[in-house]
Amino acid sequence: MSVEKRPRKPTIRDVAVVAGVSYGTVSRVLNGGKWVSEDAREAVETAIRQTGYTANHHARSLATGRSNSVAFLLTEQHHLLFEDPTYSLLLRYSAQALTARGQTLVLLAAGTADEKQGILRYVEGGHVDGVMLVSSHESDPFVSSLLGAGVPTVCVGLPLGPDHEFPSVSVDEYGSAREMTRYLLSGGSTRIAHIAGPQDTPGGRFRLKGFRDEMGELFDESLVVVGDFSRASGAAAVASLQPGSFDAVFAASDSMAVGVIQRLQRAGVRVPEDVVVAGFDDSGLAADFEPALTTMRQPWERIGSEMVAMLLDVIDGGTGKTLTLPTELVVRESAPRA
Amino acid sequence: MSVEKRPRKPTIRDVAVVAGVSYGTVSRVLNGGKWVSEDAREAVETAIRQTGYTANHHARSLATGRSNSVAFLLTEQHHLLFEDPTYSLLLRYSAQALTARGQTLVLLAAGTADEKQGILRYVEGGHVDGVMLVSSHESDPFVSSLLGAGVPTVCVGLPLGPDHEFPSVSVDEYGSAREMTRYLLSGGSTRIAHIAGPQDTPGGRFRLKGFRDEMGELFDESLVVVGDFSRASGAAAVASLQPGSFDAVFAASDSMAVGVIQRLQRAGVRVPEDVVVAGFDDSGLAADFEPALTTMRQPWERIGSEMVAMLLDVIDGGTGKTLTLPTELVVRESAPRA
Repeated sequence: MSVEKRPRKPTIRDVAVVAGVSYGTVSRVLNGGKWVSEDAREAVETAIRQTGYTANHHARSLATGRSNSVAFLLTEQHHLLFEDPTYSLLLRYSAQALTARGQTLVLLAAGTADEKQGILRYVEGGHVDGVMLVSSHESDPFVSSLLGAGVPTVCVGLPLGPDHEFPSVSVDEYGSAREMTRYLLSGGSTRIAHIAGPQDTPGGRFRLKGFRDEMGELFDESLVVVGDFSRASGAAAVASLQPGSFDAVFAASDSMAVGVIQRLQRAGVRVPEDVVVAGFDDSGLAADFEPALTTMRQPWERIGSEMVAMLLDVIDGGTGKTLTLPTELVVRESAPRA
Repeated sequence: MSVEKRPRKPTIRDVAVVAGVSYGTVSRVLNGGKWVSEDAREAVETAIRQTGYTANHHARSLATGRSNSVAFLLTEQHHLLFEDPTYSLLLRYSAQALTARGQTLVLLAAGTADEKQGILRYVEGGHVDGVMLVSSHESDPFVSSLLGAGVPTVCVGLPLGPDHEFPSVSVDEYGSAREMTRYLLSGGSTRIAHIAGPQDTPGGRFRLKGFRDEMGELFDESLVVVGDFSRASGAAAVASLQPGSFDAVFAASDSMAVGVIQRLQRAGVRVPEDVVVAGFDDSGLAADFEPALTTMRQPWERIGSEMVAMLLDVIDGGTGKTLTLPTELVVRESAPRA
């Protein structure tokens, strides 16, 4: 030590240099000694005494490599955040649950290929401890890369495709769609159209499947149109149907249901008098719209808190699971009880 | 060095230990030697030779401490993101500009005291290289803490209060408000009401000042109401005015202008026939609303790219500056040319 510029507390790096081992080895010894040889452990313990190193909170955090933060990772561009009201709810409740556990929510949007590359580097760099994966489409290679990098990840919605084994929190999409279809049938509708979501998303695929199975012999392929969950796609979808060919519309999202109603009203079709319309989600949109929407309520607060709890458990070494939550039929003006 | 477990490339920490200086001192020497004494520099250079340290790309990244990411930091709760359409624009263009420079945008929302504490720790932990500070209110101690921690920061909108010396990108709030007021006066309006934004924000304070100065002797304190930039506050503000006491409304945001128009229409007042209404921002809302809004267009794309350029410069050691950008009067139906 030639020039002592200012007093400095010894660090893990100092211990590593004196012990002649890597930073990681010191870190492993400090964290309980897994994967460390007896020789190395002794060297580290000697070096700790020699340097006078004491683990403080900060060093502890360096040793565990924890950033005490979790990514809310949207595999869409940022501005799509603003187009789907369910993201707002999920974000709000996830942030609440994380803050209550002393964790920080970091929002990342991986829309373009360049953004995906940057975010993968960021996540691999240890700047977040884990990832809540939101709105992933089937077979997105980005998701495979994330999992390949060993980043603790929990998915919202049942993952589709080859990565289907990772932990997830979702609602019973299939059963919920059957329940809504059953409700519309019980009100006397027989010609029910379905505006489905994208078929490479679980909400798109399983809600359509539930609808089809509940309709049984009444199912009519010509009354199914696939949208992208947005209001505009709901309006376009209903405009593509033969006027007068349906007496009810079940849309796979509240946003699409609103688009359906606006387009029907513009064509002089009254909701619910001429056609009843139902949505899915119970986002804020559903209660505020006129007429208020009949919909399947997703338990947003619970989805957020369960997702956070599961991810923190996975970060701590847990294996996670596939958690399926129930929804609730909410009856309002757009499809009232018969 | 007692036990050499495996060959290991010397690190900056090793150089620091051998030189007897801090990690930061070595880092500063490697990065050009600012703020380093001659003695310390010599000690570091000797230690570099002794340890055989060579800066590689990764070490370089460690040395610079760069995460290649920048925070878009909102000092509000997450869900407020969705209530103000200007955030969406700012986020979109900032993300574009950052991605083009190989940087990742990290969105952080510091609404509650707990969130602020967590985010301060996260930022101080070096998980982002700098901060774009969005929507800060005057005298927020959180902002002082951020600046006190030495985190490179650029503010959107002219900072108010004791921290007013840090770099910012904003539009000419005062001149823009004068221009809109002049336009409304030139159309024959004389009883112009102003719905101002919060007076602890630059957009609230300086737009009101420009309005007042341009009105001169026509200024009437009883026609000024302060809102919070939201649609609901615009509606409430105009409802609090004496009906018939004004022939024009200049709202300090498009959202408030929309609230104003909806409330006036519900009361049977026609826009623009009975009362003309103007907004500020030219968010997407302005062109899509019926009647389309006359407004002051903020150059969102340029604000985003200038903010990113300035912040990356500050991160590289630049001092930043106060950049003021021009706006543009956009005339549409809500306040047409006379």
